[in-house]
Amino acid sequence: MTEHPTQGPDFNRGNNGLLPAIAQDASSGQVLMLAYMNQQSYDETLASGQATYWSRSRQSLWKKGETSGHWQTVEEVFIDCDADTILLKVQQQGPACHEGYQSCFYRQVTDEGLRVIDHG
Amino acid sequence: MTEHPTQGPDFNRGNNGLLPAIAQDASSGQVLMLAYMNQQSYDETLASGQATYWSRSRQSLWKKGETSGHWQTVEEVFIDCDADTILLKVQQQGPACHEGYQSCFYRQVTDEGLRVIDHG
Repeated sequence: MTEHPTQGPDFNRGNNGLLPAIAQDASSGQVLMLAYMNQQSYDETLASGQATYWSRSRQSLWKKGETSGHWQTVEEVFIDCDADTILLKVQQQGPACHEGYQSCFYRQVTDEGLRVIDHG
Repeated sequence: MTEHPTQGPDFNRGNNGLLPAIAQDASSGQVLMLAYMNQQSYDETLASGQATYWSRSRQSLWKKGETSGHWQTVEEVFIDCDADTILLKVQQQGPACHEGYQSCFYRQVTDEGLRVIDHG
């Protein structure tokens, strides 16, 4: 018996069954984005090998890249100690951010305000 | 005028004012953990230079390392395109995970179940 007998994320721990999923570039280690997954999108991610999230705004499955072509091919999946956060190591096609930056985290907080830094 | 006039995270976009914050090792690029921040913990993080989260279980400020000594000294802070996720690049003292692993993401999901992988 282990503390977390589940073999994957525990979606009961999420808000409305949603857990945060971090996408990290498998090659560069760059953190690309954070989105949310429910059980359905997680299952679809494992089955297809393509990162599939749950769009909170559209309330629907969101297969990353389906409209943009900026697919995320999943190489490895990790869960954290509480089984309530998912980490995907992905091969990113094109930019991850819908604003055209390689990573969604393209703005650094500095004493002088936000500074755009594109690591792409 | 910019699309996001805020100079930092938009805590109004969070659940109960909480936004996910990713801690990434500034040297190795390893994703260490994900925790949550409210405005107070974010302000404290910037003021002190030490990662300070909001403990959802204890409903209180959680200065990482205060009891364990496993501090996270913040080198850089980023926000994502929606200003609703925070990325901290930190110097991690000791293991980030309370279970003794360098990263909380020490379990990989594989076809054979969970596999413990400590990158520490």
